[in-house]
Amino acid sequence: MTTRFSFTLAATDGRARTGTISTPRGEIRTPAFMPVGTAATVKAMLPESVRATGADILLGNTYHLMLRPGAERVDRMGGLHRFMNWDRPILTDSGGFQVMSLAGLRKLSEEGVTFSSHIDGSKHQLTPERSMEIQRLLGSDIVMCFDECPALPATEGEVAASMRLSMRWAQRSRDAFGDRPGHALFGIMQGGVTRELREESAAALQQIGFDGYAVGGLAVGEGQEAMFGVLDYATGFLPQDKPRYLMGVGKPDDIVGAVQRGIDMMDCVLPSRSGRTGQAWTRRGQVNIKNARHQDDPRPLDEHCTCPACTGYSRAYLHHVFRAGEMISGMLLTWHNLHYYQELMQGMRDAIAAGRLDAFVADFHAARAEGDIKPI
Amino acid sequence: MTTRFSFTLAATDGRARTGTISTPRGEIRTPAFMPVGTAATVKAMLPESVRATGADILLGNTYHLMLRPGAERVDRMGGLHRFMNWDRPILTDSGGFQVMSLAGLRKLSEEGVTFSSHIDGSKHQLTPERSMEIQRLLGSDIVMCFDECPALPATEGEVAASMRLSMRWAQRSRDAFGDRPGHALFGIMQGGVTRELREESAAALQQIGFDGYAVGGLAVGEGQEAMFGVLDYATGFLPQDKPRYLMGVGKPDDIVGAVQRGIDMMDCVLPSRSGRTGQAWTRRGQVNIKNARHQDDPRPLDEHCTCPACTGYSRAYLHHVFRAGEMISGMLLTWHNLHYYQELMQGMRDAIAAGRLDAFVADFHAARAEGDIKPI
Repeated sequence: MTTRFSFTLAATDGRARTGTISTPRGEIRTPAFMPVGTAATVKAMLPESVRATGADILLGNTYHLMLRPGAERVDRMGGLHRFMNWDRPILTDSGGFQVMSLAGLRKLSEEGVTFSSHIDGSKHQLTPERSMEIQRLLGSDIVMCFDECPALPATEGEVAASMRLSMRWAQRSRDAFGDRPGHALFGIMQGGVTRELREESAAALQQIGFDGYAVGGLAVGEGQEAMFGVLDYATGFLPQDKPRYLMGVGKPDDIVGAVQRGIDMMDCVLPSRSGRTGQAWTRRGQVNIKNARHQDDPRPLDEHCTCPACTGYSRAYLHHVFRAGEMISGMLLTWHNLHYYQELMQGMRDAIAAGRLDAFVADFHAARAEGDIKPI
Repeated sequence: MTTRFSFTLAATDGRARTGTISTPRGEIRTPAFMPVGTAATVKAMLPESVRATGADILLGNTYHLMLRPGAERVDRMGGLHRFMNWDRPILTDSGGFQVMSLAGLRKLSEEGVTFSSHIDGSKHQLTPERSMEIQRLLGSDIVMCFDECPALPATEGEVAASMRLSMRWAQRSRDAFGDRPGHALFGIMQGGVTRELREESAAALQQIGFDGYAVGGLAVGEGQEAMFGVLDYATGFLPQDKPRYLMGVGKPDDIVGAVQRGIDMMDCVLPSRSGRTGQAWTRRGQVNIKNARHQDDPRPLDEHCTCPACTGYSRAYLHHVFRAGEMISGMLLTWHNLHYYQELMQGMRDAIAAGRLDAFVADFHAARAEGDIKPI
């Protein structure tokens, strides 16, 4: 086991890459999908089940954990890994994005952001320095810079000003992070959908120097076409030898398109959130298990899937337990969705290594075009 | 594997017994605790996890399953075992008890009970014959007679009339059940807290002849002392060579007292329901994980317990996820509670086999008297 954080590229295929991030807590195979464990749990899953889906790394949310149970408390309990019983790598966001989405409840200044808790209304402050401290207390393996993500719609001038503030905060984050062997600090590129701003942001971050680079400010409502449009050039502004992380993405086809454009890491609540609302993601697209057409269907969600939901249960059962409001519904569908996402990542890693990603992506879209299996 | 239903007594200690019920779907070690899988799921648990706690048999509810998803649908899906992915024995209740608790929504006659669904208000009828048919469609291994359990308070005359109706229904259940090798039909003794009525009921059931005998009409609000008072004599009215099942019991000390009085099988929603409301059952009694005194406690619920909740998580974590409304709270506490119940049963089985149940029970009460571990 390494004592350092490092990234090794194993193969490229077009702009897509596959490789390994090594950390003292284990290896992360890239491209990697990171399930989200907001409040120190991936909702509806035990951590050993998350691992069984193939996840190498989880994401934790600074904003939620600082409010409840509190970063100092997590630290007293031995850190987030021990607290939530996950001994593999954890990436934590900086809190910036989630604080920004509080809208009327926050106040922004050069120093940072003051805001009111959505839980009890109590006042809090986040600055680059406090975000670094919280992420250190949590014991995060991959720490994210504290940044600002402007609320949309925003003028180009607003986006530029916000990006430059984030770059000053990136420097303060770097200074506050210090030297922590085995732990990584990632910078976050901003600049909206403006190429020149993205280029300026990428240059500013590389001037400071980070262990990895995230693409921020996307997947915030701009649409897939605009997102891919930014990724078409933005990953090219980033160094080849560091991991690239697209934050908060996405649906399976978003993920595939991002990998094709050179992204190495992604996270999203979608597979777990969908699982709790009766939505399954499969090779053939999305399945709404609430639909009455499933109530007498003895077939699994996906006959080729090896997850516990598909090997153990019929659509009729999954429909029944969803309708009855049973917890096993969210447990099984979340497991299935996370399994599907990880299988998709493994498929892309294998395809890139074999130099056949284009064929893999063509198969991916063809299976989705077929649509869900017909009712019997 | 046997093709028949049978019961073998291995040892007795005082009035307590240990043995094995053999069925084509597996053996049931007695005294046995049966987790309740009301709507084709033990709430918050995957069936393989229920098995991992040590459960040999589950209970399913005729009333709930007939309404949703419907007994005919379960039959079309291959039966309840396949539907819910549990291949070991299942006992189903008759629906009688749950229909009786519908109060104003039901109407009783010699023929049976008509009632309105609590889900959609639709009209349904349950009779001994229909209950037998539903339990056959579900594929139940141990079928319960359709009986009436009078609403309390009731006069002795009302209890007697109700018991005699249940005995007529027991004969009709027996006739409708027919000859189904490998499947068992249990009679249900009624008679409230009146010794003579219990004796009359037990004699009537044995006149008909069943594969096992349940003690019904207890754990309905009469209190532990009255319940034990009935069990002190009632099990003596039943044959030695057939299993005895106390329905709907109970708390750990109820279970221990029932085993001491010659009961072989029990079921209760308590461990799973408690788990979802933040209540844990331990050797030292009940623990309310909601309580703020746990929020900084790095110790497990029970340092001697080997369940996933106790080996993987602190009280601080369990407190946090309960407060945050996370599903993992119910998942872990339910697992712990079911594990504790099964461990208690195993302890009693071992103690009875070794002829030291009195010492085991003394230790059980001594540990509870110590109370929960002190806050740190």
